[in-house]
Amino acid sequence: MTRRYYVGLDMGGTNVRTAAVSPRGGVLAMIRGPARAGAAAEDVAANIASQVRALIGLANSRGWGAPAGIGVAVPGPLDLTTGTVISAPHVSAWRSFPLKARLQKSLRRRVTLENDANAWALGEYWRGAARGRRDVVLIILGTGVGGGLIVGGEIVHGKLGAAGELGHIMVSPDGPPCDCGSRGCLEAYASASGLRALVAQRTRRQRRAMPAVFLDDEGAFSARRLYLAARAGNRAARWAFETAGQHLGIAIASFLNIFDPELVVIGGGVAKAMPLMRTQMMKQVRARALGYGFRPAPIVPAALGQRAGMIGAAYAAIRANL
Amino acid sequence: MTRRYYVGLDMGGTNVRTAAVSPRGGVLAMIRGPARAGAAAEDVAANIASQVRALIGLANSRGWGAPAGIGVAVPGPLDLTTGTVISAPHVSAWRSFPLKARLQKSLRRRVTLENDANAWALGEYWRGAARGRRDVVLIILGTGVGGGLIVGGEIVHGKLGAAGELGHIMVSPDGPPCDCGSRGCLEAYASASGLRALVAQRTRRQRRAMPAVFLDDEGAFSARRLYLAARAGNRAARWAFETAGQHLGIAIASFLNIFDPELVVIGGGVAKAMPLMRTQMMKQVRARALGYGFRPAPIVPAALGQRAGMIGAAYAAIRANL
Repeated sequence: MTRRYYVGLDMGGTNVRTAAVSPRGGVLAMIRGPARAGAAAEDVAANIASQVRALIGLANSRGWGAPAGIGVAVPGPLDLTTGTVISAPHVSAWRSFPLKARLQKSLRRRVTLENDANAWALGEYWRGAARGRRDVVLIILGTGVGGGLIVGGEIVHGKLGAAGELGHIMVSPDGPPCDCGSRGCLEAYASASGLRALVAQRTRRQRRAMPAVFLDDEGAFSARRLYLAARAGNRAARWAFETAGQHLGIAIASFLNIFDPELVVIGGGVAKAMPLMRTQMMKQVRARALGYGFRPAPIVPAALGQRAGMIGAAYAAIRANL
Repeated sequence: MTRRYYVGLDMGGTNVRTAAVSPRGGVLAMIRGPARAGAAAEDVAANIASQVRALIGLANSRGWGAPAGIGVAVPGPLDLTTGTVISAPHVSAWRSFPLKARLQKSLRRRVTLENDANAWALGEYWRGAARGRRDVVLIILGTGVGGGLIVGGEIVHGKLGAAGELGHIMVSPDGPPCDCGSRGCLEAYASASGLRALVAQRTRRQRRAMPAVFLDDEGAFSARRLYLAARAGNRAARWAFETAGQHLGIAIASFLNIFDPELVVIGGGVAKAMPLMRTQMMKQVRARALGYGFRPAPIVPAALGQRAGMIGAAYAAIRANL
């Protein structure tokens, strides 16, 4: 039986998740494949196209017919006016890469590109924690910090589509170096890489080695292990999450002053440590947001987990095909 | 001869400026009166109504007839959903004051409220430096720092109408106290009151009195005198503007990362000192804005001077009557 659906694809550093999404945002089917992010530029694109084809093949096997639209979410700043990936954190081969044109040629269908963090925000707006709201700040705390801004019910794209880099609001100008080249960005505190750097700096200062309890079985820093250590009472680990929470609170206060949103949504892996960050975060929000007592915007967790990016990518395709 | 016009009123701390504005944004006539900001709440509102009536009287004397709309810009965070002034920096008597209802009752016409900085931004967007753009960050450096955000051709109001408080983005969390109760806001650096505090702190640290050359004829600190002293080579004055420029640059870098705007517009009295601030400002922007070399958003001066607020207030009325 023919069924109307959209393809929503979310490319991470490791995996590509692709879903058939109903016009109302339900995930009808999904597949997962490797991202092959280290491959040559054309091969990374070909891999995305083959994931889309695999999903369409699955849909065909169920008799659903062709998709009504295809949305593809990829990391990094995009130029949506030309469909070009300016650069991508995990895909070093993509430099000014015309991804949209390549995918459309390969798939012979219209493709809508979206930044991965914006797709995540769109998913949470359409079907998740921000459903039914009009003005929302959405922050995702993962390896880095990304986000999206919903203003008047629309995602903010900016001039080229690079808006919403909420991880690169400065929260302490002389703070630790950020991967972006600046210093003291929110990402340098409230992300897995920021937490690692905070802990590494502290242990260096104390002329000690990184505590083994913060490392995973391969000996690499693990934000999850840091979280477990903090819960078990480790002082350095607790300090790291409190410092992250403090600077997240400073950033949220700035966002509240700039946007006067109805709601702030926080998601991503590091957000699972919110109980360890919340006290310091709220202390900063209360001290710094204008009139916070008068009109507190709730700060709530994201609702869709890792499905948000696919659902949001599909929503981007729906919006583009309106 | 009947002529279609809108009333645009801009209330400052000292003066109320009221204009008859053509549907295309030309100022057809204007009057200026005292703000009476220290009076009782009802009297401040009655004074605004009487200024509007005076302007309509002037228009009547020229045979133009009734205005097509009335826009009123006032300082402070507003709740646009109810037409209430939550609080106003210069009008201590306005606390949750139902200004819109009072003005409409008094004038027997529909009134559109707007925050003064947002009205300024709307004026520059409609007829000034940001004309024809869709995504613009507008910052006004005066006694304090205000601003407005144009996203997709619309001003960002937020939940209640309090969005655009760009002066209260945190640029240095342990920085000097800000009038808002927080620390290290942009306003604590790049405003007349911020400059005064910067200089006062420096002279206190050096156990000296505030240099007489920074004071006006009444002995009060004057940002204009500070500017003239800096131009004449005074080191403390130069340092103050360079520090303001540095922190303005940090804020602009954050705004570029958050919004990816086409353009940044800077206005207000303190912006006249841009030649003294620009080097430090641009140094921070280049070091901190993502991919600034790839897509530099021009940073330009405002174009309309003190007329922007009236023109923007009229534009708010036009938009509300669409």
